[in-house]
Amino acid sequence: MKPLLHCAVLLVLFISCKNQKEKNSANSVPVENICRFVNPLVGTSTMGHTFPGATAPFGMVQLGPQTDMQPYFNADGSYNKKTYEYCAGYQYRDTTIIGFAHTNFSGTGHSDLGDFLVMPTTGDLVLDPIKTDNGSKGFYSVFSHDNENAAPGYYSVKLDDYSINAELTASERVGFHQYAFPESDEAHIILDLVYNVYHYEKKNVWTFLRVENDSLVTGYRQTKGWGRTRKVFFAMQFSKPFKSYGHKKYDEDNYDGHYRYFNQEENFPEMAGRNIRAYFNFDTAENEKLKVKFALSPVSMAGALKNMAAEIPHWDFEKVKAETQQKWNNELAKIRVESISDEDKRTFYTALYHTFLSPIVYEDVDGSYRGLDQNIHQSEGFTNYTIFSLWDTYRALHPFFNLVQPSRNNDMIKSMLAHYDQSVHHMLPVWSHYANENWCMIGYHSTTVLADAVVKGVGDFDRKCALDASVTTAKVSYFHGIGDYMKYGFVPEDKSSYSVSKTLEYAFDDWCIAQIAKNTGNAAVENEFLERSNAYKEVYDSTIGFMRPKYSNGEFKKEFDPLDTHGQGFIEGNAWNYGLYVPHQVEDMVQLMGGEKRLSGMLDSLFTMDLDDKYIEKNEDITRDGMIGNYVHGNEPGHHIPFLYNYTGEPYKTQSRVRMIMKTMYGAEVNSLCGNDDAGQMSAWYIFNSLGFYPLAPGSEYYELGSPSVKKAVVSFENGKQLTITAKNQSEQNVYVSKVTLNGKEIEGTKISHLDLIKGGDLVFEMSDRATK
Amino acid sequence: MKPLLHCAVLLVLFISCKNQKEKNSANSVPVENICRFVNPLVGTSTMGHTFPGATAPFGMVQLGPQTDMQPYFNADGSYNKKTYEYCAGYQYRDTTIIGFAHTNFSGTGHSDLGDFLVMPTTGDLVLDPIKTDNGSKGFYSVFSHDNENAAPGYYSVKLDDYSINAELTASERVGFHQYAFPESDEAHIILDLVYNVYHYEKKNVWTFLRVENDSLVTGYRQTKGWGRTRKVFFAMQFSKPFKSYGHKKYDEDNYDGHYRYFNQEENFPEMAGRNIRAYFNFDTAENEKLKVKFALSPVSMAGALKNMAAEIPHWDFEKVKAETQQKWNNELAKIRVESISDEDKRTFYTALYHTFLSPIVYEDVDGSYRGLDQNIHQSEGFTNYTIFSLWDTYRALHPFFNLVQPSRNNDMIKSMLAHYDQSVHHMLPVWSHYANENWCMIGYHSTTVLADAVVKGVGDFDRKCALDASVTTAKVSYFHGIGDYMKYGFVPEDKSSYSVSKTLEYAFDDWCIAQIAKNTGNAAVENEFLERSNAYKEVYDSTIGFMRPKYSNGEFKKEFDPLDTHGQGFIEGNAWNYGLYVPHQVEDMVQLMGGEKRLSGMLDSLFTMDLDDKYIEKNEDITRDGMIGNYVHGNEPGHHIPFLYNYTGEPYKTQSRVRMIMKTMYGAEVNSLCGNDDAGQMSAWYIFNSLGFYPLAPGSEYYELGSPSVKKAVVSFENGKQLTITAKNQSEQNVYVSKVTLNGKEIEGTKISHLDLIKGGDLVFEMSDRATK
Repeated sequence: MKPLLHCAVLLVLFISCKNQKEKNSANSVPVENICRFVNPLVGTSTMGHTFPGATAPFGMVQLGPQTDMQPYFNADGSYNKKTYEYCAGYQYRDTTIIGFAHTNFSGTGHSDLGDFLVMPTTGDLVLDPIKTDNGSKGFYSVFSHDNENAAPGYYSVKLDDYSINAELTASERVGFHQYAFPESDEAHIILDLVYNVYHYEKKNVWTFLRVENDSLVTGYRQTKGWGRTRKVFFAMQFSKPFKSYGHKKYDEDNYDGHYRYFNQEENFPEMAGRNIRAYFNFDTAENEKLKVKFALSPVSMAGALKNMAAEIPHWDFEKVKAETQQKWNNELAKIRVESISDEDKRTFYTALYHTFLSPIVYEDVDGSYRGLDQNIHQSEGFTNYTIFSLWDTYRALHPFFNLVQPSRNNDMIKSMLAHYDQSVHHMLPVWSHYANENWCMIGYHSTTVLADAVVKGVGDFDRKCALDASVTTAKVSYFHGIGDYMKYGFVPEDKSSYSVSKTLEYAFDDWCIAQIAKNTGNAAVENEFLERSNAYKEVYDSTIGFMRPKYSNGEFKKEFDPLDTHGQGFIEGNAWNYGLYVPHQVEDMVQLMGGEKRLSGMLDSLFTMDLDDKYIEKNEDITRDGMIGNYVHGNEPGHHIPFLYNYTGEPYKTQSRVRMIMKTMYGAEVNSLCGNDDAGQMSAWYIFNSLGFYPLAPGSEYYELGSPSVKKAVVSFENGKQLTITAKNQSEQNVYVSKVTLNGKEIEGTKISHLDLIKGGDLVFEMSDRATK
Repeated sequence: MKPLLHCAVLLVLFISCKNQKEKNSANSVPVENICRFVNPLVGTSTMGHTFPGATAPFGMVQLGPQTDMQPYFNADGSYNKKTYEYCAGYQYRDTTIIGFAHTNFSGTGHSDLGDFLVMPTTGDLVLDPIKTDNGSKGFYSVFSHDNENAAPGYYSVKLDDYSINAELTASERVGFHQYAFPESDEAHIILDLVYNVYHYEKKNVWTFLRVENDSLVTGYRQTKGWGRTRKVFFAMQFSKPFKSYGHKKYDEDNYDGHYRYFNQEENFPEMAGRNIRAYFNFDTAENEKLKVKFALSPVSMAGALKNMAAEIPHWDFEKVKAETQQKWNNELAKIRVESISDEDKRTFYTALYHTFLSPIVYEDVDGSYRGLDQNIHQSEGFTNYTIFSLWDTYRALHPFFNLVQPSRNNDMIKSMLAHYDQSVHHMLPVWSHYANENWCMIGYHSTTVLADAVVKGVGDFDRKCALDASVTTAKVSYFHGIGDYMKYGFVPEDKSSYSVSKTLEYAFDDWCIAQIAKNTGNAAVENEFLERSNAYKEVYDSTIGFMRPKYSNGEFKKEFDPLDTHGQGFIEGNAWNYGLYVPHQVEDMVQLMGGEKRLSGMLDSLFTMDLDDKYIEKNEDITRDGMIGNYVHGNEPGHHIPFLYNYTGEPYKTQSRVRMIMKTMYGAEVNSLCGNDDAGQMSAWYIFNSLGFYPLAPGSEYYELGSPSVKKAVVSFENGKQLTITAKNQSEQNVYVSKVTLNGKEIEGTKISHLDLIKGGDLVFEMSDRATK
């Protein structure tokens, strides 16, 4: 895959490094500037869905350019498929920006957010982003990647239509805009509250604004997008007073009570309605820097003001930028690598950066946050997080956090347990989304995240609560066929669609629950869930050698195409890929499926077969870019597959495949990501594999050994220990591992224990160009 | 006025007394049962707009039957004028009930609320209130007044369609339903979240519900009615588990994200959308009493649960009813009267009851409340109130509170000052409405409420803050012509409509502000506002002898009809009535308008002239029922007029007029009220006049003497003193006062001081059938 080197990107990186260097020399603290290896634009082309803007690590504010000018619906009322490309509001190929929004997902496979679009303009006031009623141009601006600079905690771009140089940075809860205007007596800052990522025109439920004084605005918005009852509060502070302001409503129905007696549109300090665009007018001198601090809160406007006062009590843009980049350097420094090439280093640190974008901190500075029950809670003894895209992230991202972010993962788990406490369904999160459960995808994979932490001894969350929450979650009968799963021992396709995917994932999650039970000494629950974890066997059809949808009457679905992704009992995957998902009992699965030889052959075929276009064209998440043969790396269900060779007696095939995948599915260019980054899961896969191991089965203390791509890496753990990973004789060609030692002791087999690794020391891979068979 | 005695009403009163008596004998505390003189149905016919349901004094929950089956819009899209009759959701002539709502205004001149309509039904489930899609009958029920019983804190009715006997009572924050069902395996409780008073179909912004367990539901609703950004939270507890439940959405646009994968309609514990009706199914035995406790909160669902636990932690309906009626007896006992007739006593106590329905307590039991800024605040040192219909209530209701409810009025003023602190307009409330300003009507009459309390020494609110808030409010230039008022010295009609009404009311409010300034020793502000208080002189046209709209060029409006209510510079009144509004400088006004003799003649004409129908037919608030000649008692601007005779040297005319007004404009029947009760203002006028005096100019310590209608009244003040008012030689005919003594000392002139009255003692009126000229 992967195309031409894009000159602009190199230029961007060059500028970024340069700026950074100057910054560091200005800063008295000596910092290793790892940020210079990060290019936030990686993955912003086509289907990476990554966020290119300014944010602090795990920050609530993710302030980025929005280039989406697509309607959600086509003129004929059908869904506009282009929409899917704009999960983070930005596509690299676009030439126009409609503003800078304060919340964005990174890499997700569906989207929302895009709160509080801010756009600086000059000249006649235009309040429509794309086109005005009379057909003239909206307030968007043309821009060039030549004038764009993206770095951790920093984004800048020149808005050509207005000759405005826009710079953005952010603390955890506050976005900071700095706009260098030309001389103008018609300078405007537009605050567009209509805009949403996937700007589905009817998403807004309510917006409310108060112009508190001549330079401060507060307000909130409620939306009903992917998160159904979602509120975000804000406080917006300008660095100088506006000379006038106003707003316009874009509602069909504007019943406004006795407000109708006022001229609300101009200089009236209270605005409310479903769809509002506000503006603030200024006089500007040539190159005058107009600054805006924009704080968010999940709780209230008072909370947003509190967050602003606590995090950015001044107007020094460079200071905030430097502090946030310092935070990024600190996070990125948790793994120091020497790579084969500089490009690999950029790929590595960009991936590492992407793993630290979400989940996000979701509470005010005083610890208050909006719970799933829409009540305001106080986080006692933890920091509350949201954005848990768990079907994606339980696989490698949360296990990765157990390696280098155990404190945060502990807080994330406590956030999940709080979510459970607040859930009227009595369920752990499926996809936690700003005090909402958006129910995206299947499985109860929070249980896996809990199990992985329990088994690896991470955190101080209550293990018994974790078990209770997991067991209760796993028995909510109306959730995606669980009732029938418990009744029949598998999910019957006639009862619940995607039945095989569900059965396989439930079985794995159940095994994870058993691990928590084992850890807490609850043998009854352990046995109950170990029993449930065998469910995968029920959906294996030995007559054809594939996992296959089964009906409640015990018969398998008749027409069945294991290459097809649609209507075959799997979600976002076919039987070839998804049907290999038994990570907790791989040996048993190998036997079930005909032994090592058959599986080896299947795997070889999977990676090499020539798949007909008809199997691909209907898919959003599975594209040629993310495929090797029929193996799909651009989506999650197959992420464990390369390690199955470790169970067919052919670890060398695992080694060569993971190196190949790293080389072809990742990179340092805008179009390097082979599929949705999926809130960091894709990138976490890369980081693990760069280091030479991967959590095939979260909930186990063991990683599968692969083939590291780094020459050397030093991983600093929170326990103060360091693990130095060395790949001796490393090269592009030397993808095979002939020997692995941990602290001088040779590792037998293909597994290595997390508990051993975090004691620190030396992990040495001896690399070779010849496979050890 | 006012028609035949309604048998049903007498019956109701009889039943009410009977029940009450039994209750008292069951209760060990001896209580004078004053409730038996109150008929909450008074004013529920045509334009009284009073609330007939169950409520505690000043309670947040006002739980009452809703009989409105009117659409807000006619089929042709025009406003349906019938709507106006349903300000409290109930019209006595109606024969159907569509349910019981938890919030209602009483007597207002515009409306809103009607939150959380609950309706018990049996048989096939019907979720539409009026008519189903296939044209069959909705869930409403026929009822008869014969089976209806309304008393303070209690309402019951038989729902004939379902043979359900419904009983309601309430504490301050919790409604309590008790439904006696027939035997049924299809018994339902419907929770209709679509319904709104003025059930303008698009009022709902969002609703959210959680079925917490098999008998508890929580949720909230946001509406954009008269209050634009209004949220009410609830917790609904059933006395026994429902066997199943569900909901239906009534939205055109139901984008629901991944919720679409669930069968949300049945037994799915989370519901959200714009328009939702939920239902809960039960089996019931014959006469089984199904009970529902329904708590409200302005803050959160957690707050509603807290309120329920604190106020009604049990299931004893009779206990709550008895406690609430005890509260009512305690409030009503503040004035004990002996009246000429029993009917007068019923009229008196029903009016007294109506004065204690609002403002309402607007905070949780822990003192937290939603502020005007939509942030959550804590009431420190006061109880927060809302529903301030100030254009109405500054005249007599708040002055009346200074007499018998000074602690509550102190809290109400602190609530107004908190509203001011939270107002982005920096204004005291105009019409405070559940954390909203609805801007209804003109003037800044909060200032008058403050001034009246300051002058009468009521409360401990901060006088300096009161002055600052008043001055700031009175200078908000974009509020209804204030900027031009300050510029021109009056409101020019070409700048702001209703200019004469505004000028007159602003002038009076300004005088009130001057009184606060005087009291706090701020001579500069006192002089500034005394100067402003002369503004009324600017709009008097001496060439025609009437107040008249003036333009900014100094010319008076040419075409001018002082009898017309529309387009003549007045709002809801004509120049004959409204043009006499200079309560702070009546002597000067008399001189300005040609002296005592001319004014006397004008007043005589006003009360006796035969007004052409054309001047009346267009009005909602001015009807023949509320008029004597051209004098309008059914609306507020003329409420002071009868006392102007005290300034023409003819107090006997004041005396006879007020007795005539009390006799003809008030009464004890459902149709006795001559106009909107206006949140208690009409009733407060009655109470004051029954006692023989009236606050012509709030902000002054003096009342004008009238002619009492009681034989004797004992007023108990919060300072522990009692004032005994005796009307010697009182009779229907003896409407003239020949002598007034306070503690034996004869009162000279027509004024009596509040400060003297609250020292207690004896106020004696000597009555006669002959005028003292």
